[in-house]
Amino acid sequence: MRYGMSEVAVVGVGQTAFTRACGVSIKELCFEAFREALEDAENLQPQDMDGSIICSAPEYDKQRSPAGAIAEYLGLNPKPTFYAEAICASSTTGVRIAYGLIKSGLHDLVAVIGFQKMSELSSTEVQERMGRGADIMWESPFGLSMPAGYALFARAHMQKYGTTEEQLAKIKVKSGKYSVLNHKAIFQREVSLEEILNSRVIAAPLKFYDCCSNADGASCIILASAEKARKITDTPVWIRGLGSASDSLSMANKANLTGLNCAVEAARQAYKMAGIEPKDVDVAEVHDCFTIAELMAYENLGFCKPGEGGKLIEECQTYIDGDIPVNIDGGLLGKGHPIGATGGSQVRTIVLELRGDAGKLQVKGAEIGLVHNIGGVGLYGNVIIFSR
Amino acid sequence: MRYGMSEVAVVGVGQTAFTRACGVSIKELCFEAFREALEDAENLQPQDMDGSIICSAPEYDKQRSPAGAIAEYLGLNPKPTFYAEAICASSTTGVRIAYGLIKSGLHDLVAVIGFQKMSELSSTEVQERMGRGADIMWESPFGLSMPAGYALFARAHMQKYGTTEEQLAKIKVKSGKYSVLNHKAIFQREVSLEEILNSRVIAAPLKFYDCCSNADGASCIILASAEKARKITDTPVWIRGLGSASDSLSMANKANLTGLNCAVEAARQAYKMAGIEPKDVDVAEVHDCFTIAELMAYENLGFCKPGEGGKLIEECQTYIDGDIPVNIDGGLLGKGHPIGATGGSQVRTIVLELRGDAGKLQVKGAEIGLVHNIGGVGLYGNVIIFSR
Repeated sequence: MRYGMSEVAVVGVGQTAFTRACGVSIKELCFEAFREALEDAENLQPQDMDGSIICSAPEYDKQRSPAGAIAEYLGLNPKPTFYAEAICASSTTGVRIAYGLIKSGLHDLVAVIGFQKMSELSSTEVQERMGRGADIMWESPFGLSMPAGYALFARAHMQKYGTTEEQLAKIKVKSGKYSVLNHKAIFQREVSLEEILNSRVIAAPLKFYDCCSNADGASCIILASAEKARKITDTPVWIRGLGSASDSLSMANKANLTGLNCAVEAARQAYKMAGIEPKDVDVAEVHDCFTIAELMAYENLGFCKPGEGGKLIEECQTYIDGDIPVNIDGGLLGKGHPIGATGGSQVRTIVLELRGDAGKLQVKGAEIGLVHNIGGVGLYGNVIIFSR
Repeated sequence: MRYGMSEVAVVGVGQTAFTRACGVSIKELCFEAFREALEDAENLQPQDMDGSIICSAPEYDKQRSPAGAIAEYLGLNPKPTFYAEAICASSTTGVRIAYGLIKSGLHDLVAVIGFQKMSELSSTEVQERMGRGADIMWESPFGLSMPAGYALFARAHMQKYGTTEEQLAKIKVKSGKYSVLNHKAIFQREVSLEEILNSRVIAAPLKFYDCCSNADGASCIILASAEKARKITDTPVWIRGLGSASDSLSMANKANLTGLNCAVEAARQAYKMAGIEPKDVDVAEVHDCFTIAELMAYENLGFCKPGEGGKLIEECQTYIDGDIPVNIDGGLLGKGHPIGATGGSQVRTIVLELRGDAGKLQVKGAEIGLVHNIGGVGLYGNVIIFSR
């Protein structure tokens, strides 16, 4: 193949609708995504899996150690299972671990299942839990919530590069345009620039529509060794590059606030492993938990130079027919963000795009796709590059 | 080498003392284990690591997503980090994942850090958290705690095989004999058979001394690729076999109650991968959260036939000079059980034994060592085989 190695492939993808309150147990939620992925993988059966990795952010439901509970419910005993977590980057962390377990020869076929049932908790409890994923000694008790953290990035970016609130709002305009075409997205309405700019302030300069929504949901990615993948499907989508990095938990210790260091480093590794450059990417899913996060991702992934993210969205270059289509499924801003399910949902979109199965959201001729998934306020960064 | 492959090795091990209340933060606790492992690995530096895996059981301290917080404190940014969990089998799960990441070529040197600070919670809260790692719908709310679950195994074993309370007590006698020689163990006193048999009932037939103790503690295992390992140390200890399996979360769905199915399956895989048989093992660390758990491990690992575990301890065959020395560091019963740290502590003991560095607890001429680490009530089972 042209790009990097072809040793581990995605052979099946599944995702529930992302909703405000799913009304079912986490087991049932995961089952729904798993079943869809099995069907997608040419009707594999649960017992065909030789391992599973269950991913979520901790402490949104009463079941501790959910891997065991979910694996039993999905019919995956006695195959090994465990739980992997990197907050919002949990399910791409699961994909990275699965790559290692498969390429090392320990496994041939692994299901990575990400989920979150945020409706178990009140909105206040969700904020409190999220805060405890930040620096609990010096920052979150003093109000440095997730929106506040990203607001600091937005302020710094505006200060240094002249990025505007309108440019940020244009990212949400794009998101709304595509999420209405994605029936699994929570947000089924287009929003105007004025509506976004006039929405209530959450953490200045970020307003209501600059923020993604909590959600319930699950995703499932089935990965296979080369030999297994070729037996299962005619359309394996190969992992070509993987990058992963961390940055400080605390905002105070970050070297700069105009980009995510962990994303820059993860992207560098992934491009190197895949042997490609940013300009080779045909379609990308990036972690737009806030509009500023998508704008910084453009720059951190090298789709434009630092400081030119605002220009990129103004020129509509990240629309479906632009130079580098980004978040063509609506992104987190449009789909909602059921924390542990999000990375898997991003991978699913890229896999559908590369197979040519993305319907109205198809990027024509897409050959190389990229996923950018961030945990915490720039704490964990995963970048994965795929191609047919 | 004689046994299996030599591609991933342990090059450094560290462990804090296991105590009732460590009085420091989880970051500091992990630092202590990490520092010892770095020193043990010929004075590697934090920045030599190219990744870390942080392991614990969830929800014993206020920091959510502890991987990021701990990695920052240990000086591991910007290298990737994440959290892995399989309750009491968390840190051997970390070792398994590290094996995959290293053998796949993604990493060369990975620190697996396991911890738990159980003193953050009251004893009642600990029981409640542990219960929520079991079946929260049908079992734990009705009193099926960890001791109650293992009591059912003990009853079934007694019924089927005639195993006696005295035989179980003899396992604790052995533990006390060795834990007094391990200065990192929580339990620094030998106990007599009478004392054990007369201790208060926790969940009949299990009494106070049949149960291990909650503890605070951390462990660290540094793993390396073959090339890296040979550069770092003259005494790498190689991973020769890995096995992992799951069983039902609920007691009601287990196929039998006289042994742990997940341990039998994990052992089968590990022996096969290492190309050895149970009789080839020179020293073993098994998951003796309760005396009955060690007795069943003898049988599940093939050190004796099913039903003959009682005889094996009566004949003192699992003492340091017996046929198959087991838990020569005191085991969980003697060391205490800081959940996420336990598997790493077991690996550390085996590594010291195989290097010939175990001091008073040295099993003479030990060449092959085995770790058996269980999560939940027979829910997750990991078996790892090591040799020089």
